[in-house]
Amino acid sequence: MQAVVITIGDEILNGTTVDTNSAFLGKELALLGIQLREKVSISDTDHHIRGSLHRYMGHTDLIIMTGGLGPTLDDKTKQTLCSYFNTELVFNATVFKFIENRFAQRGLKMTERNRQQAFLPATCTVVPNTMGTASGMWFERDGTVLVSLPGVPYEMKHIYRSELVERFRKHFALPVIENYYIMTSGIGESWLADQIEEIETSLPLDVRLAYLPSPGIVKLRLTGRGNEQKKVAMRVSVWAQQIELRLGSHVFANENISLQEAVGRRLLALQATLSLAESCTGGNIGRLITQIPGSSAYFLGSVISYDNSVKERLLGVDPDILSTHGAVSEETVAAMLDGVLDLIGTDY
Amino acid sequence: MQAVVITIGDEILNGTTVDTNSAFLGKELALLGIQLREKVSISDTDHHIRGSLHRYMGHTDLIIMTGGLGPTLDDKTKQTLCSYFNTELVFNATVFKFIENRFAQRGLKMTERNRQQAFLPATCTVVPNTMGTASGMWFERDGTVLVSLPGVPYEMKHIYRSELVERFRKHFALPVIENYYIMTSGIGESWLADQIEEIETSLPLDVRLAYLPSPGIVKLRLTGRGNEQKKVAMRVSVWAQQIELRLGSHVFANENISLQEAVGRRLLALQATLSLAESCTGGNIGRLITQIPGSSAYFLGSVISYDNSVKERLLGVDPDILSTHGAVSEETVAAMLDGVLDLIGTDY
Repeated sequence: MQAVVITIGDEILNGTTVDTNSAFLGKELALLGIQLREKVSISDTDHHIRGSLHRYMGHTDLIIMTGGLGPTLDDKTKQTLCSYFNTELVFNATVFKFIENRFAQRGLKMTERNRQQAFLPATCTVVPNTMGTASGMWFERDGTVLVSLPGVPYEMKHIYRSELVERFRKHFALPVIENYYIMTSGIGESWLADQIEEIETSLPLDVRLAYLPSPGIVKLRLTGRGNEQKKVAMRVSVWAQQIELRLGSHVFANENISLQEAVGRRLLALQATLSLAESCTGGNIGRLITQIPGSSAYFLGSVISYDNSVKERLLGVDPDILSTHGAVSEETVAAMLDGVLDLIGTDY
Repeated sequence: MQAVVITIGDEILNGTTVDTNSAFLGKELALLGIQLREKVSISDTDHHIRGSLHRYMGHTDLIIMTGGLGPTLDDKTKQTLCSYFNTELVFNATVFKFIENRFAQRGLKMTERNRQQAFLPATCTVVPNTMGTASGMWFERDGTVLVSLPGVPYEMKHIYRSELVERFRKHFALPVIENYYIMTSGIGESWLADQIEEIETSLPLDVRLAYLPSPGIVKLRLTGRGNEQKKVAMRVSVWAQQIELRLGSHVFANENISLQEAVGRRLLALQATLSLAESCTGGNIGRLITQIPGSSAYFLGSVISYDNSVKERLLGVDPDILSTHGAVSEETVAAMLDGVLDLIGTDY
């Protein structure tokens, strides 16, 4: 199973937009066992779109195209697809109704341009887009499936997850895949690997383990394959629990969430409050904590004591501690912590 | 003038790495007046590299390839280029000396793999890389220039800026281009455009103005073209000064720097200190300020008063102000400011 991703748009070529769509698709397709063979970014012109179709149709199992489906004049993809597949745009009442409702709900007037979004190629299967007005389109020819999707990342991702994964699985008879994430912190990748080596080498062939490290965090992903959803999920979770048991308190979550999200959930469960004393991080931890929706329920505030004078005066850190142990020391951190808990009066 | 960028590496295709190299190149090439026609990411195999060379050589003015030049076995580009251009790897004493020095300076031992990096295709022009061990290579055939660069972004960018811009200019007889940046804040794009409309419409054909908006900031870029560096620079700066004069205090810098960098420079010049009181930004402003090297010379610290209780108790904001005007109000901001200046004792 091989795929090609084609992203359309001058803003990608001239560097105004960094193409994150194709990275998303590369990752997601790999999870389904579909290998991305090539990805290409082209200009939104009839000539370039036709050229790329000519190059890949019949030579790969799947082509995903993103972009060029907007209602404006510079979006050429729909017309080009019609001419390439020898078909014409026809009015789609379901899509029209959806767009009409969308505008009505927002109290906006539909223009002729918006109405055009309900005209779709006669021979394609429409892939619904519940997040916008540009529908996805599914074509088949010469043994290749071509899916055209809007370029707006959240629309594209939503259509991919809600519609395409299942359609790909059926069409290409792909195995069921279940992922289980184990989030760890405070333990380096190689040390972690040593800890679970024995479990890793015992894994059956249909359960695979991936290490996904990022600064301060190592994410483990267990991927199981099989035919029955329930059995695969059960199989993966049995192995995951073994790993969790071995890693103990280094595991901060067993789903794909960030450390700040896990901290937030724990605090909400405990009905506890949080304050922070930061130094060289300059406010970054507060930024991460407050990025989580609902963080105002537990996060009260912080003192950023970048300079030692602030550590001393606001947080009451003993100048002797600073001069004996230095600003970056366990002793200073403990004193900063005492200071901020005292000052803001939170549980943590 | 048209170019194609080819990025090589499985990590780009499977989504582990978001390809930012090609966005950088698209932007930089556009500044030189070279249009990026297509960009493609391929796997690091002989087959795919040859296929892409076959597709584009002789059909575009310039191809820039990035990646696949590391010393490990999975990096195939150099071998493939040798066979494609009917040449062989020869020892390059200059490159060898550079690599040897690099290892000596770091007190590291050179391995056979590192030594291999000094073997380069006989028919290419070596493009020096002073940031790493993989040299750039310049080939010409069928009216196309092919430049192969390492994929590590800071090495690639450095080679591009320090070596390639000048070589491209000479080889393709490109005009001299001078950019002048005017950084503005506190003024929206359309309002700004109204203010300078008269100047914009009077611009000569060889001086162009671009609006580059980002949250809170509108960057203006004036680009001049011509044959003589000095004349072009002078011409652009005359027009830039007109715009700066019109925009007055909305201009925070006349070079391409961030707001936090401009603030830092001003504070250093004034030998003044800074503290912050943040609320819903959660520490983000402190994070941005402390990202600037040397910020410890002026930034002492902040109080993040996410919760109103912290605004009242630490910053001494009158509860009446909060209940009358709300937490997000000019009055509350003024009181928070008084509080933090008092508490941390900075000039600003």
